[in-house]
Order: sequence, then C-alpha cells, then structure tokens
Amino acid sequence: MALIVHKYGGTSMGSVERISNVAARVAKWHRAGHRMVVVPSAMSGETNRLIALAREIQAQPDPRELDMIASTGEQVSVGLLAMALKARGVPAVSFAGWQVPVRTDDAFTKARISSIDDARVRAELDAGKVVVITGFQGVDPDGHITTLGRGGSDTSAVAVAAALGADECLIYTDVDGVYTTDPRIVPEARRLPKVTFEEMLEMASLGSKVLQIRSVEFAGKYRVKTRVLSSLTPPDIALAEESESGTLITFEEDETMEQAVISGIAFNRDEAKITIGNVPDRPGIAYQILGPVADANIDVDMIIQNQSRGGTTDFSFTVHRNEYQKALEVLDGKVRAVVQAGEITGDPKIAKVSVVGIGMRSHVGIASLMFQTLYNEGINIQMISTSEIKISVVIDDKYMELAVRALHKAFGLDNPAA
Amino acid sequence: MALIVHKYGGTSMGSVERISNVAARVAKWHRAGHRMVVVPSAMSGETNRLIALAREIQAQPDPRELDMIASTGEQVSVGLLAMALKARGVPAVSFAGWQVPVRTDDAFTKARISSIDDARVRAELDAGKVVVITGFQGVDPDGHITTLGRGGSDTSAVAVAAALGADECLIYTDVDGVYTTDPRIVPEARRLPKVTFEEMLEMASLGSKVLQIRSVEFAGKYRVKTRVLSSLTPPDIALAEESESGTLITFEEDETMEQAVISGIAFNRDEAKITIGNVPDRPGIAYQILGPVADANIDVDMIIQNQSRGGTTDFSFTVHRNEYQKALEVLDGKVRAVVQAGEITGDPKIAKVSVVGIGMRSHVGIASLMFQTLYNEGINIQMISTSEIKISVVIDDKYMELAVRALHKAFGLDNPAA
Repeated sequence: MALIVHKYGGTSMGSVERISNVAARVAKWHRAGHRMVVVPSAMSGETNRLIALAREIQAQPDPRELDMIASTGEQVSVGLLAMALKARGVPAVSFAGWQVPVRTDDAFTKARISSIDDARVRAELDAGKVVVITGFQGVDPDGHITTLGRGGSDTSAVAVAAALGADECLIYTDVDGVYTTDPRIVPEARRLPKVTFEEMLEMASLGSKVLQIRSVEFAGKYRVKTRVLSSLTPPDIALAEESESGTLITFEEDETMEQAVISGIAFNRDEAKITIGNVPDRPGIAYQILGPVADANIDVDMIIQNQSRGGTTDFSFTVHRNEYQKALEVLDGKVRAVVQAGEITGDPKIAKVSVVGIGMRSHVGIASLMFQTLYNEGINIQMISTSEIKISVVIDDKYMELAVRALHKAFGLDNPAA
Repeated sequence: MALIVHKYGGTSMGSVERISNVAARVAKWHRAGHRMVVVPSAMSGETNRLIALAREIQAQPDPRELDMIASTGEQVSVGLLAMALKARGVPAVSFAGWQVPVRTDDAFTKARISSIDDARVRAELDAGKVVVITGFQGVDPDGHITTLGRGGSDTSAVAVAAALGADECLIYTDVDGVYTTDPRIVPEARRLPKVTFEEMLEMASLGSKVLQIRSVEFAGKYRVKTRVLSSLTPPDIALAEESESGTLITFEEDETMEQAVISGIAFNRDEAKITIGNVPDRPGIAYQILGPVADANIDVDMIIQNQSRGGTTDFSFTVHRNEYQKALEVLDGKVRAVVQAGEITGDPKIAKVSVVGIGMRSHVGIASLMFQTLYNEGINIQMISTSEIKISVVIDDKYMELAVRALHKAFGLDNPAA
C-alpha cells in the first residue's frame, strides 16, 4: 500500500465523460489499496475562456484579480472529480489550494510554492478518502489567491507529492512518455523508459513540453519519484502494466544510462534574441543591462558575452518571443543611456536546438559532432551555450526541423535501443 | 460621506458591457465621497451552468462539492468587477467569502451566516478602495466553502451592511421597487415608496420575488436601512435622484402608513399541499409528522391543524412544489406506520394568495372583506392561515390571477396614492 499522487491535464478533464474516465482510473488505484491524492487541471479551454473574459474588461488585467478569476477553473474541476468518485462509491473530498493550504509568494500569475501543510490532507487520507486538490494555485501570506502560471498543475502535483512524502507522482498526459525528440518532427524518435532528473530538467527548460520546468525542479529538490505516462490508455488497464508504462524520472545514473551518451534532442522556437553592440567592458555592466529587464518581470534564458576587443564587447541574451518588444522598450528607455552602448539589434525568428545527455559529462567530442552535423547541413550557428549535460545552439528558425532530424540521426538516436 | 453597500444581481452582471455599467455607477458613488462595498451575483446563467454540469456527473450532487463548484460563479464576478473599476481609475479589491471571512454554519447549499469579520474590509476601505465581496457564499467552521441558497447574494449584501454598520444597503434589481402586487398580473399595481420591515418580510415570504426572505430578516434584526431600486436607470443618473428612488424598507410606522390598511397582495404558486387524514389527537403528533420531514431537509411553510372530532383530526401543511414527491415518500416511509394515520393526500396545483399590511393590526374586517371578495368571484378557499399583518389563503392555482386582481381592487390599491 503506497501513497500515490496522480495529476491529470485539462484534456483529460475536458468533458463529463472524460472526468468519469479519470474517476474510473483513480478508483482502480484506490481499490488496489493505495492512498490516493489527485491533482486535476481546469477543464480544457476553461482557463483561456476566463482570461479572455478578464481581458475584455481590462486590456492588461490586474494580476491579483486575474488570479482570483483564473483559479476558479481548477476549483470546478476538483468538485466535479470528487463527485465522479463518489458516484462510483469511492469516498472523496476536494480542496482548493487555500484550504490545504498550498502557500506561495505573492507574485500573482507566476507565484512560487513556499510550503504545503500536509495535516488536513493526511487526516482525510487516514479517513479512507481520495483527496482531490486544485492544481495551478495557492494562497499568499496575506490570504490572496495566487496562480503558478501556465502548466502550474504539474508543479502543484509534484510539490504535493513532496510534502506528503508520496511514493510516486504519476503525471498523466496526452503523450505516453518522454521521447528522444518530438516524434512529429522525427518519426524515428523513441520513448525513453527512464530519464535522469538532470536530463529532464534540461529537456523541460529547452522546450520539451511534456512537463513544466518547475515541476522537474521540485521533483529533483525533494527527490520525488515522478512518472510521465499516457492518459489515453483504457482506465481499466491492468495496474501492474500501467505502473510500469511511460517514462520514469530517476535520480541515479545506472549502467544503461552511462552507455547512452545523448538521451535526446530538445528544441524551442518560443525565443527571440537581442544583442547590444559595443558595450563598454567594465564591472557591473551585465547587471546594468539585465537589472531593468528583470525588474520588468521579463525572464531571460541564454546570456552570451564574449571576450572584449578594444574595450568593448557585444552582450546578447534571449527572452520569450512574447516579451521581445517589451524587452526592447526597456533597453531603449532605461538601459541605453546608462551603459552608453552601441546599436541594439534583435531577431524574433530564431530557434534553439540542444543535445542533452547525462553521459556527456564523461565524453569528449559531443560538441564537435554537433557542430559538424550542422555544418554538413549548411546551418549557421548564431549563438552557443553549454552546461554540464547539454549543448544549445541558436539558429535561424527555418532550419529547426532540419537540424533536429540531422542531430537525432547523427547521435544514433534513430536506432532501436540495444 | 457615508458607508454604502451596493448589491447587483446576475442580470446586471450578465455581460462585459453590463459589468462596465455597474462599475460606472459604483464609480459615481465613490467619486461623491462614499465608502463603497459592492456585492455582485454570478453572471446570469453561470450558476445554472455549473449546477447542470455537476448534475451530469452525479444525479444528486454531493452538497459539499456542489458548493465548491457553484461558488466559483461569484468569484469570477468579483474579480471582473474589481478590474472594471480599476480600468476606470477607481482603486478596488475583491474578496471571496472565505477571505473576509463570511462565517456560516455547515448546511451546504443552504448555509446561514453566523458572523462576518469586518477588519479586513475596513482596512481596505480606509486605504480608499472599493471593496467587492462575493455574494451567496461563506466558509464553515471547518474551512469548507458553503453557499446560502438561491438569492443568497441579497442576504450577503444585507449581512455585510450590518457587520460594517453601513448607512444604507442598496439592492439593485430589474424592477424599480416593491409594488402593491405584481404589475404583470394587475396593471394598476403601484410602487410603494416605503414599506415597513414587517410587511416586507411577509411579502418576501409570500412569494414576492424582489428580495430573498433571509435578507429581509437580516435587515430587520440589525436594522439595516435597505432600499430596493432599479439597475436599469442610466449609470450616470444624478446621485440625489438615484438615492431617493425605489422602495425604502423602514422600521418605523409613520402616519402615512397608518392610513394604508393593506400595502399589498402577495402570491405564490411554488407550493404543494399535503394532508394526513384521521391523525390521532395525542401529544407529540405534530412532531412525529414534521420531525422526519425536517430531517429530510424539506422546508414546510403553512401548517394547519383544526380541532379534533371523535379523537382524530386532519393535519395539513405546504412544502415547495419541488419537494412534494420527496415529502410524500418521507411520510409513506417513516411517518405512516408511527402515527397510525389515515389516507395521505396532496395537491401540487395550488396557489397561496395573501393580503399584507401593517395597518391590519388595528383594523377589523380585513378577513371578512377578503373572504367576501373571493366568494363573489366563486373561488373556493382550501386553507387559511393568518399572522398579525397578513392573511393567507390556499386556492386552486387556476384562480390565482383572478383572486389577486379582485383583491387588489377590493382593498383600494388600484387608486393612485393620495
């Protein structure tokens, strides 16, 4: 008998029939003797409907009030799922984030979880109930409702699993696991039965949409055994089979992994790059540039600054494409005069492509094979950034698919696993 | 500068444009220097949509989970209205019932307010903000969300006004006040500029849909100056004119009222009558009949028991028409054997018609005029019940309109006010 957390996305909760399927699946786990906590998203389309309504009222919706509104989608979902469980004779109770409570900071629309009280949930589990908790939301120190941003329900599920010391957190999605790359781009892509936490972190941050990055961070920080698996299997699939399906995020590098140098090719075309030319090479300059950008709540991904030539250098970084214009305005208004820089240029039509693999740590030649492969395809590399387990390049976005396919083949990912 | 509570119904909140109109009206009051609290209902149709969704999942929705779901409609409304105010430059903040908190008992779907904490609302008012509070809902001692039942937002508004010691509570509706009877049935019906709390209480309980009865009870208990007025006037109507419009519920009987014996004709066709024949005339019998009915959460309105003849009597009562079948089942299952009664009969096709007036206390002959009028129209009276300020009769529902028109005329209500 284990304590298990299930998370279901908006598609799985998209209709009365689908909610009934979710209830059937959870009931199966409950009948098998497991203590069950379920974190569902809002019904698909609901969050978008609420945000659109808010935008009709106020073009730039007040973030505190937007969270008040957007959080209701998940509240409806937990009530409906608890009812669907009860309709099947499974005792169940729902909680909104503030009722648990799931405590967060006060960064409305992108809050971070600070702590989760487990007493109330544990008491209901002890009473034999399935506990259904809203994803995506919490409550700040002043008692205001906050939301965690898009995909926040993944984070809620893993954080709840961590707070309860759950044996496993199962994230049900519309794909059946984590792949070596997106099968829509490379048909030969293979599902990975396991992936390390570090690799998953890089995959998530590099644009693999399977899990929200913060949920992976939580999984790593609290060592939550997390599995990504399909919500499209029949709800009555044998529990033994279901619990071995999908992709397990692990925290140990076993031998099999050591042999696979590269586990996947990740990519992202949501970014835009900005370069500030002829920046004086003096202490504090990076802070003077990125401070105002951060103050405007614009997240920065890659940051590149090369060796200076003749006392100046070029400073480049990437931001989400949606925040490209805003970032340019901040640079024009608050940065240009202070840093006495040259021209500010940018390009929203870029893509980032990365090779990711825990095995990279102990292998040379990965970078060289990557650059050679891109050269062979005639693809120019605009920016390069590396970490211990990935190498990312920025290229013209029209070459993205070509680059992903070529790299997937070059790194031997097309071959079936030995 | 006064502290004013506004309440807006679902129709007033029914679209983005209408919410914007509500914001314009509230902004006008705020600009005039008043401290403003606003209690809006869910957007029209929203509560019904949510309840229908719940019923699709579970035919008899779990009440605790139903409240979790149904309460979201008002939460969306307060967020949208706070945004609409901010979009007009008016500082505003929204609160859900649990945030205030509005404390209730744990009778899900029909909870009663036990107390309202005014500290948080007062702090925001002191900071110059308009405070927008969800109607219809609160939080029980265990931190579960509760709702107050249909029309509960009226009660929320009056209760909030009482807790804050507000100078006036303005209930904006789609009618422009309280009438001598329903103008759709009697075109000569007149608006009452004032009505006493006691009369309003009888009118509300007798089916005048203008205000929910519990809101009137609250107004009376805490002596909240409450005004019912139209939400259909232009939002920029002069404040002096608006604040004198509609119908004021008063707590003093002034001279004008003393002269009007009857202030209105109320009616209700939502009820059904049930009679248990040949009930033994012994102590405790009423409790043995109505105890199980109350335990099944069925509200009873009129109760009639006449002098016994030969050791038995007939016991009659009325319930809401929706609960007629359920009440019959309870009587069949739990009551019949215990009380050893005769036949249980009932009729859902009845109407209750009442004459209401504070002046009735000191006048004789009201009952006689009422009964004579019905006799003249050939209408048979099935049941009679009286209070200090009203006389109600149950008649066949097909005669309801006829009875209302005849009584309105007979009591001189057709004549324009002197």
